[in-house]
Formats: sequence, structure tokens, C-alpha cells
Amino acid sequence: MERANNGGLDGIMHKSKEKEGYAIGWLELVLRFLAFLLTLIAAILLGIDKQTKIVPIKISTDLPAFNVPVTAKSSYVSAFVYFVVANSIACAFAALSLALAFMRKGGGKGIIRLIIIVVDLMMIALLFSGIGATGAVGLIGFKGNSHLMWNKVCNVYGKFCHQVMGSLALSLFGAIAFVLLVSLSVSKLYNRA
Amino acid sequence: MERANNGGLDGIMHKSKEKEGYAIGWLELVLRFLAFLLTLIAAILLGIDKQTKIVPIKISTDLPAFNVPVTAKSSYVSAFVYFVVANSIACAFAALSLALAFMRKGGGKGIIRLIIIVVDLMMIALLFSGIGATGAVGLIGFKGNSHLMWNKVCNVYGKFCHQVMGSLALSLFGAIAFVLLVSLSVSKLYNRA
Repeated sequence: MERANNGGLDGIMHKSKEKEGYAIGWLELVLRFLAFLLTLIAAILLGIDKQTKIVPIKISTDLPAFNVPVTAKSSYVSAFVYFVVANSIACAFAALSLALAFMRKGGGKGIIRLIIIVVDLMMIALLFSGIGATGAVGLIGFKGNSHLMWNKVCNVYGKFCHQVMGSLALSLFGAIAFVLLVSLSVSKLYNRA
Repeated sequence: MERANNGGLDGIMHKSKEKEGYAIGWLELVLRFLAFLLTLIAAILLGIDKQTKIVPIKISTDLPAFNVPVTAKSSYVSAFVYFVVANSIACAFAALSLALAFMRKGGGKGIIRLIIIVVDLMMIALLFSGIGATGAVGLIGFKGNSHLMWNKVCNVYGKFCHQVMGSLALSLFGAIAFVLLVSLSVSKLYNRA
């Protein structure tokens, strides 16, 4: 009788664990999809960021001001190029890992699982270094730095700077999705260990 | 007889696993100590970075050049301040986790273990964002950016810039130590799961 009871209890616990496994499996799929989408939009938004403005330049007080077109492009700044490349790599890996996660939904053990966690970890490093680089250059562009005599440029290229900020925020959320993915994988392994 | 043999084999395997556990335990201690030391030196090196130079400035062709002292300090640039703070936080956490690791050498299971892995993960994000920020500003200081009209400053503050580079390299190795720590923890949990 006791044995039968235990069997029933085991069955319920097994089912509950299975259900939990599926729930975490779905959460992983959602996070991977978010990571993919956010890094994709971040890369595109900064990659195509460009603004041309007509700025009046006065050479002499006797002559009228010249109207000179000046252009800001993301490819002009190494930090922005690095950001676009970092987000593109993270986006490609998110898509690949999403496809792999679909194939073994509900979790699973295998060397691929371990490799995915380690590469997720590398994506965190890559994305956060890109966010730091773009954030630092963006901040100087926004506020300038009198000590270095680097003037702010965001008063001229307002739209360009706003697009950088938007891209930065999206990439940050994408990077947080990767942090949550690794935390999820670790807690999953921890519960099984 | 067979049972006794199996018992012997089990014993050997148990001892081998225990040995492996100790080896990984020592590796964790070494990595944590390295992370602590590298982030500590990186924070100090950039925190105290300062250079004063006498620069001749000519106002008029009739007058002799003025000798003006100009100073570069890490606190002048927000990205460098962020870098120092990030490395200080990572250093403090490395010291704390090192103390905790000493107490349960050879590994162990507990909620503290899980918390340490997640905070290790946050340290990776923190350090890499600081490295990205300092690297981006350092690169512009080194090469300048003609599009933004930000002139290079490392031709004037050579010693200052070299110290930034040294600090950056140390912090990068410290951040890699954290990546290895999380990878180690994950592979340990994976082998147990």
C-alpha cells in the first residue's frame, strides 16, 4: 500500500518536474528569440545611422556665410563599427542556438548544451564591451570633454545621436537576455546536480 | 570475488573523482586570486594615472612662447572613472568569493554556490563594459578622429596613455579569469548533473 502510494507520489513529482522542464524550455526559447531580435535591430539601427546637415561656415566678416553639408556616419567611429559587428555576431549565434533549442525543447543533456552555455558567456563579454565602447563615445559626443578639448557633436547631429542611444538600449536588453539565459542554464544544471 | 573487485574499482573511481574535485577546487582558488590581483592592480594603475606636461603656447609671433603646464588625470574622463569603479567592485567581490571558496575548498553544493556563479556573471558584464568604454576612449586619444574633430592626445600625454593601456590589458586578463571561473563552475555542475 505504502509502495503504491510512493509510486503515485513519484509519478506526480516526475510529472511536475517534466512540466517545469517544459516551462524552462519555453522560457529559454523566448529569451533566445528576444536576444536575436534585439541584437538584430540594434545592429541595423546603428549600422544604417547617418545624418547630413547643412552648417553655415563664416570665413571672413566681409563675406556671407558658406552653407557646407556635413555628414555623420556610424562607420566614422571605430567603437560604433565594433558595436555593429558584436551585435551581428551575437544575433547570428542567437539564431543558431534558437534553432538548436527548438530541436531539443524541454532541455536535454549533451556536449552541445555545454558548448552553447560557454558561447552564450562569450556573447555577454562581446556585447557588453560593445555597449561600453559605444556608450563612452556617445557620452563624449553628447557632453563633450573640455580637458581633452573634444567638443560635443550631438547638438549638431541630434537625430544621429538619438539613434545611437536607441541602438544602445536595445543591445543592452539583448545582452541582459544572454545573462538570463546563462543564469537559467546554470540554475537548471544546479537543480539536476 | 567479483563484488570485491567492483568495490575496489568503485573505491578507485571515488578517489579519482575526489582528486579531480580537489584539482578543480585549487584551479578555482588560483583563478579567483588572479581575478582579484589583476582587477586590483588595474584599478590602482588607472586610478592614480596622472601626467603634467609643460607645453609651449604661442599667442603672437612677436612674443616668445608661454610655457603652460597641462595635466591629464583619469578622473577627467567618465569612461576611466567607470573603469576604476568597475574594477574595484570586481576586485572586492573576487576577494569575498576567494574567502568563501577557501572555506569550502574542493567544491560543495549550496545556494551560495549558485549566487556566486550569478554574481561572477555580473562581474563579467561589468568588467567588459568598462574595458570597452576605456578602450574606445583610449583609441580616440591614440589616433584621434578627424570626422568628429577630436584630436589625438597621446602624442602629448605619452606616459599617461601607456598606463591606460597597461591597466586595460590587466583588466582584460582579470575579466577572462571570471569567464574561466563561470565556465569551470558550469562544467563542474554539468559533470554532476
